[in-house]
Amino acid sequence: MPEAPFSYDGLDRVMHERARLSLMTSLASHRKPLAFSDLKSLCGLTDGNLSRHLQVLEEAGLVQINKGYDGKRPQTTCQLTPVGRARFVEYLAVLERVVRDAAEAARLGEERGTDPTLKPA
Amino acid sequence: MPEAPFSYDGLDRVMHERARLSLMTSLASHRKPLAFSDLKSLCGLTDGNLSRHLQVLEEAGLVQINKGYDGKRPQTTCQLTPVGRARFVEYLAVLERVVRDAAEAARLGEERGTDPTLKPA
Repeated sequence: MPEAPFSYDGLDRVMHERARLSLMTSLASHRKPLAFSDLKSLCGLTDGNLSRHLQVLEEAGLVQINKGYDGKRPQTTCQLTPVGRARFVEYLAVLERVVRDAAEAARLGEERGTDPTLKPA
Repeated sequence: MPEAPFSYDGLDRVMHERARLSLMTSLASHRKPLAFSDLKSLCGLTDGNLSRHLQVLEEAGLVQINKGYDGKRPQTTCQLTPVGRARFVEYLAVLERVVRDAAEAARLGEERGTDPTLKPA
């Protein structure tokens, strides 16, 4: 058995947090910068949560925030950085492994549950 | 487009946290109670982190902790509760959706990246 087979060190906590995972997934599907208001709707976040989590992603170098204009109205947009995109793809590979392990674990647990030599849970 | 398609409300924060996801996956593959020492090795956690995260899972009713004996030595073991097992299966279904969405998003992002009508990221 490999050392700590369920440790999942590659599940980067910066991206793994639920709201940030949501933001990364939304941004990953767009190369074009997304307006804050669009991100808010896509991820179902409040203004406060959106700003807070985007700041964490920006500080980690995963997201770039641009202050610009939509006509005369100021508009803030953001997009993944190339590093952010690459790190997200790496994170996804680990997440896929978790899903495979866990699905297998759930299946095994079910099978063992019907094994009469084991105590019921 | 559905409302907040990337919000993933079903990603229960109790189980989504990395160390706890690791614990849930380890426990899901065993119907028999697991000793603390085995869980520690499986998940690569320190004593302190193991206790802290197991307590969170116990308080949420997902895990049952049993104080018993291995021969004459006291031994603490734990196992998923039936509720914990059911909730983990539900959580997994959402996690599988995230992986599908994100893989699709990464693929779309790549395709759009080669679209000459869009600005490079």
